[in-house]
Amino acid sequence: MPLFGTSFSDDCRNIREQSPIVHNITNYVAMNFSANALLALGASPVMSSEPLEMTEIAAACTSAVINIGCLESLQIKAMEIAASEMYRLSKPWVLDPVGAGLSRLRLDTALDLAKRFHPSVIRGNASEIMALSGEKSAARGVDTAQDSLVAEEAAKRLASATGAVVSVSGKVDLITDGTRCVRILNGSPMMPAVTAMGCTASAVTAAFLAVDGNPLRAASLAMAVMGVAGERAAAVSRGTGSFAVNFIDALSRIDPENDSELIRYE
Amino acid sequence: MPLFGTSFSDDCRNIREQSPIVHNITNYVAMNFSANALLALGASPVMSSEPLEMTEIAAACTSAVINIGCLESLQIKAMEIAASEMYRLSKPWVLDPVGAGLSRLRLDTALDLAKRFHPSVIRGNASEIMALSGEKSAARGVDTAQDSLVAEEAAKRLASATGAVVSVSGKVDLITDGTRCVRILNGSPMMPAVTAMGCTASAVTAAFLAVDGNPLRAASLAMAVMGVAGERAAAVSRGTGSFAVNFIDALSRIDPENDSELIRYE
Amino acid sequence: MPLFGTSFSDDCRNIREQSPIVHNITNYVAMNFSANALLALGASPVMSSEPLEMTEIAAACTSAVINIGCLESLQIKAMEIAASEMYRLSKPWVLDPVGAGLSRLRLDTALDLAKRFHPSVIRGNASEIMALSGEKSAARGVDTAQDSLVAEEAAKRLASATGAVVSVSGKVDLITDGTRCVRILNGSPMMPAVTAMGCTASAVTAAFLAVDGNPLRAASLAMAVMGVAGERAAAVSRGTGSFAVNFIDALSRIDPENDSELIRYE
Repeated sequence: MPLFGTSFSDDCRNIREQSPIVHNITNYVAMNFSANALLALGASPVMSSEPLEMTEIAAACTSAVINIGCLESLQIKAMEIAASEMYRLSKPWVLDPVGAGLSRLRLDTALDLAKRFHPSVIRGNASEIMALSGEKSAARGVDTAQDSLVAEEAAKRLASATGAVVSVSGKVDLITDGTRCVRILNGSPMMPAVTAMGCTASAVTAAFLAVDGNPLRAASLAMAVMGVAGERAAAVSRGTGSFAVNFIDALSRIDPENDSELIRYE
Repeated sequence: MPLFGTSFSDDCRNIREQSPIVHNITNYVAMNFSANALLALGASPVMSSEPLEMTEIAAACTSAVINIGCLESLQIKAMEIAASEMYRLSKPWVLDPVGAGLSRLRLDTALDLAKRFHPSVIRGNASEIMALSGEKSAARGVDTAQDSLVAEEAAKRLASATGAVVSVSGKVDLITDGTRCVRILNGSPMMPAVTAMGCTASAVTAAFLAVDGNPLRAASLAMAVMGVAGERAAAVSRGTGSFAVNFIDALSRIDPENDSELIRYE
Repeated sequence: MPLFGTSFSDDCRNIREQSPIVHNITNYVAMNFSANALLALGASPVMSSEPLEMTEIAAACTSAVINIGCLESLQIKAMEIAASEMYRLSKPWVLDPVGAGLSRLRLDTALDLAKRFHPSVIRGNASEIMALSGEKSAARGVDTAQDSLVAEEAAKRLASATGAVVSVSGKVDLITDGTRCVRILNGSPMMPAVTAMGCTASAVTAAFLAVDGNPLRAASLAMAVMGVAGERAAAVSRGTGSFAVNFIDALSRIDPENDSELIRYE
């Protein structure tokens, strides 16, 4: 029985057919790769961090992702307006707390956004999720060597405290609403060796949220499509440069009908 | 008879030989791809949005492109100085009104730059050109599903009102000075599935303007070289990721002498 | 006898094993490519230009690169804090004076950072190094057509005046501490046709500085690994687009044990 029945096929097909507008407030490293990943799936990315147009873009988009990867003080106002409007309009949005353990500014901003504006999903690596939960972790930079599973309790606690689904990426991806827990086993060791792969997972999660009203399911299927594309790309790559290219190719060639059989999960 | 006689060969050769400096005030998504496209053609890109150096860069460059894709209030001052200086120095510049229908800030900024500082070319998709012309369109996000041909009257009106050549990209590219109208038939359906392809068309238009004093011709040949490279790339690509890479390859291998025969136009 | 004995093998292996955090204050064009190059070598990139977190990031990182490629006034404060903290903590950092001859703001900022905060290495092309040395050059834009060797005297003078190792990239890469001079002969003519290749050389230099206490050696081996990867990439590329991808592939597949034999130097 495939994960969540026919939802993978339905969601992938709906993203292509509806081409939902996904608003990205994201970092400069990830912008191009995230935009190409969203286009490859069939979604329509918009990238803006200008406070003066946040209200209009929130009205026009179907879902959003707010990523603090290159957090700048000036961006925070845009993030607050965007998150506040998405919440007010009952539209789903994803918080990506990149490097939350790296500075006080990042941790405070991520926690503040999470508490005030209720993201549908918080997606990060183990270190970032543990930092948001108030746990010490072996965080180093924006990467993490830590397994997602060490963050299971922290993820559940964060989900319960915020009401968000928490998605922890790693060798195994762990998605929880505080009670239930999905583990996606797909993926490739090359994924953390390409920059912006985590940010892109958050953008893809926003694309699934745009067509799927169930955040636990949307977040899980987003990690599944990332993992399946990663496996396909790894099989034909000669290094991390071609892997990044082949990954976008694989996303653009996802087969909604048959690829759900490739999802490995617990 | 090839489009505009030997101009395609001449312009391509001159870009390579003169390596004109093209100043880009552009969005964060497009910067890397646009810079690589300009280098592939032989031009020399400079990217800066700092008001304090706009006058010096306007003096050093041969042409410029101003793109409002990630418009920030702070950038607008830089855009005004750059456009004003280019106009004062009688150097050609291209306005790319990305997402002009998406917010009041974008529409006002694009119209203001167009009216005060006389771009040589305004290049956008059908929705953007219609927004600048004051027409309602079915705009959604920064992409458009609309055919360029629905914007023909809007393009002609905008050209007449501003004195700029207007270049509307789409399945068919439409370039008009308000009276004459060139249609470029080259291209690939993969092009709109790669981010920054429109922004790059604007940068390439600026490169042709740097060596060609006729804006209608320069804008048409720029869309032709984009379309020819797009067709070559599509023929050897396995998805949108490899298409983007193969597109830059194709630009870097344009044959000035023989590729003009591949241009299809009306 | 390989360049600097077994240092190439040792340094490459140490970057992979220690995965040093390299902080990048860099331009928007180079961010993605530089991050992927650092990850390909095994380092852990962090990208931030927010003054409020510069002290914490300086404490967390092992080395840094400060690049003025898209210099914005607001960034200068971040650069000053980062450089000041790196100097105070005796951690190595690289200054990349992109387009130093292009504007007064760039020249003043680069000289000020170099004089007050003592970079371990200054890496630029011939025009940039000559501009910092107070010499007129045939600079045009951020590229240069000039050979690195014309900047030899300027490089030595700049090294003596600042105490930094000066690394001049070009057909031949020239690295000097003011007295000794290493020339790296590896590389490919395709390298200057890809944007951000120079910025990436600076980031890679910072990665080598993170594991090698000898700046002349670290800067030389960084240019060597760039050149070796460039040669491997050129051998399998069909244009500048695939060259950029193959370059990252080659960096990710450097063989610490055997590739030192490929280094050509004087």
